[in-house]
Amino acid sequence: MASQRITDFLATNPVEGPCLVVDLDVVKENFNAFRKALPDSAIFYAVKANPAPEILKLLASLGSNFDCASVAEIKMALAAGVGPDRISFGNTIKKERDVAAADALGVSLFAVDCIEEVEKVARAAPAARVFCRVLTDGEGAEWPLSRKFGCMPAMAIDVLTHARDLGLRATGISFHVGSQQTDTNAWDAAIGDAKFVFEALERRGINLTLVNMGGGFPTRYLKDVPTAQAYGHAIFESLKKHFGNRLPETIIEPGRGMVGDAGVIKAEVVLVSKKSDTDENRWVYLDIGKFGGLAETMDEAIRYPIRTRHDGGATEPCVLAGPTCDSADVLYEKKPYPLPLALTIGDEVLIEGTGAYTTTYASVAFNGFEPLASYVI
Amino acid sequence: MASQRITDFLATNPVEGPCLVVDLDVVKENFNAFRKALPDSAIFYAVKANPAPEILKLLASLGSNFDCASVAEIKMALAAGVGPDRISFGNTIKKERDVAAADALGVSLFAVDCIEEVEKVARAAPAARVFCRVLTDGEGAEWPLSRKFGCMPAMAIDVLTHARDLGLRATGISFHVGSQQTDTNAWDAAIGDAKFVFEALERRGINLTLVNMGGGFPTRYLKDVPTAQAYGHAIFESLKKHFGNRLPETIIEPGRGMVGDAGVIKAEVVLVSKKSDTDENRWVYLDIGKFGGLAETMDEAIRYPIRTRHDGGATEPCVLAGPTCDSADVLYEKKPYPLPLALTIGDEVLIEGTGAYTTTYASVAFNGFEPLASYVI
Repeated sequence: MASQRITDFLATNPVEGPCLVVDLDVVKENFNAFRKALPDSAIFYAVKANPAPEILKLLASLGSNFDCASVAEIKMALAAGVGPDRISFGNTIKKERDVAAADALGVSLFAVDCIEEVEKVARAAPAARVFCRVLTDGEGAEWPLSRKFGCMPAMAIDVLTHARDLGLRATGISFHVGSQQTDTNAWDAAIGDAKFVFEALERRGINLTLVNMGGGFPTRYLKDVPTAQAYGHAIFESLKKHFGNRLPETIIEPGRGMVGDAGVIKAEVVLVSKKSDTDENRWVYLDIGKFGGLAETMDEAIRYPIRTRHDGGATEPCVLAGPTCDSADVLYEKKPYPLPLALTIGDEVLIEGTGAYTTTYASVAFNGFEPLASYVI
Repeated sequence: MASQRITDFLATNPVEGPCLVVDLDVVKENFNAFRKALPDSAIFYAVKANPAPEILKLLASLGSNFDCASVAEIKMALAAGVGPDRISFGNTIKKERDVAAADALGVSLFAVDCIEEVEKVARAAPAARVFCRVLTDGEGAEWPLSRKFGCMPAMAIDVLTHARDLGLRATGISFHVGSQQTDTNAWDAAIGDAKFVFEALERRGINLTLVNMGGGFPTRYLKDVPTAQAYGHAIFESLKKHFGNRLPETIIEPGRGMVGDAGVIKAEVVLVSKKSDTDENRWVYLDIGKFGGLAETMDEAIRYPIRTRHDGGATEPCVLAGPTCDSADVLYEKKPYPLPLALTIGDEVLIEGTGAYTTTYASVAFNGFEPLASYVI
């Protein structure tokens, strides 16, 4: 739901074209909810979710650390006022010269998931701490999780041993249970895998200390999702179950869960039409689509709540599409989206839960349309 | 294949990070091939394929017209030196204020596909010519064609009658057979539909004069495609078959066919690894992916040729992925891509046929990565 502050902002600041408005008060509430839910875990905000400087500054002031995907994101985090000790270079796919650049900036914590990446880090950042990402199955996640990141737990043992042999500090294990994960038990199997790797390495004289439990914490879209408290409880129970009274240090990396529900996109209905007199569904075209910031509608994965001034009236299922001349720029068609019958050309719509993974996904200028404008209030 | 000019440019201009290089000589050859293949058709270059100013200027000087998707693209075409009489506002989804802006710039040719859009144009550009887009089935096209644009031919009759009734000049019919269309006969059914609408409107006293045959002309990726000459021949035969000796004016709107094979992306191998000791396929990670310009690999639709310094040696199928922390940023996985066994971290790769639909699809800064750099030579 759009906060009062966002509603007031939009009422008093007419913006031409689509725009995202993010409410920092909601971000602060989310940060505090995570801190309360998992008081012993360090929070590393996933900068890629929304790198707006105002968000990074707020989170820095609240004590957050930062999970960065690139040297550019590391520089953004530093600019927000944190030291490099509060930054993790969490991308497992790094150019060696980018590892060196991060090292030069003082960053000393790096993700790896293979021998080859360990070797890059050993050459370019010889004193670094590394954690190895292991594969999980991503079951229960709404945003598809591929096998792109991580290795099998058995291989992680070799990867971290190799890191130690090359003089790096083999520090821990990371995993990711899949974005918009709605099953609070999804962390359990991965925490078990982490314990398996901890034990195997202990037998080789390597004492891991860190479990990076990644992100995956959901935002409320159309369906209710469990609270941060519920995730915190389930995760803590799993940690106790697998690690007993020798609990490791832990990290969480919320991105969507931190900023998703803090943002609302204001858009406009450009056209409402049918393709023939007998067409079952109306087509509703907005001035924002898949290439203007709503990339996560890919395969209709994420279904955003949409508010209009006609809410409460009769609805009918519509095909919802973006404004570009690209036939792939259709948001919801396989499962049409119910919208008010009274919805008409020129109407404003509010697309909720869009604080994460929107502005940065927007294309540079596809069809000549400007990237998504953003206001952080 | 990278032209000699592109090869020389890359050899003498070291660029950090991925970049596209477009050879204007190839664009000129493509333009001349279209002009020769369809000497009686006006060429409207689809600006969205690649709006680089150098490309627009070259095409303007060669006599091309321009198909624009937005007011921003109209301004780019005007800046390239053509008058508004050589510009078509080809997007069927337009804000009324954008129709007015185009009208104020002198543009007088607009695409519509429904009564509602006709009414906008009648209000905002009362003297305009309009053509109505009809739906085709897109069979034979490699880039998915949805039902997003166009209406059924029977509805087009009402749409154009309404346009006439509102004082607009009902000018013709347009269609699009689907991008990367490899069947030269794909235009035939749509030309037949156009003739059907022409006849129906003639009975209402409306004489259409224009058939806009859209784009769809392919670029050579991994498989050979028919020549412009072959398309020209098939299309001309269809026009004669349906329209006899009363041939209409015709327009074609090549985008991919004009610039696709003129461009090559230089990228770098960031990582080559396996997920376990028993993994069948290696994973190859490039410094460009789905969010950095290669959006058309969505659903593995477009399969680009990739050249390396190891070509000719033994290959094996690889999963190919981009550099971002997004698990959806995988280019080819369902059908792995054969790459040289000798391919290694740091190698340069050339991704061919990337002159169209790359730079403008690139995201603003996903994961902090810069948009795709572009050099037009």
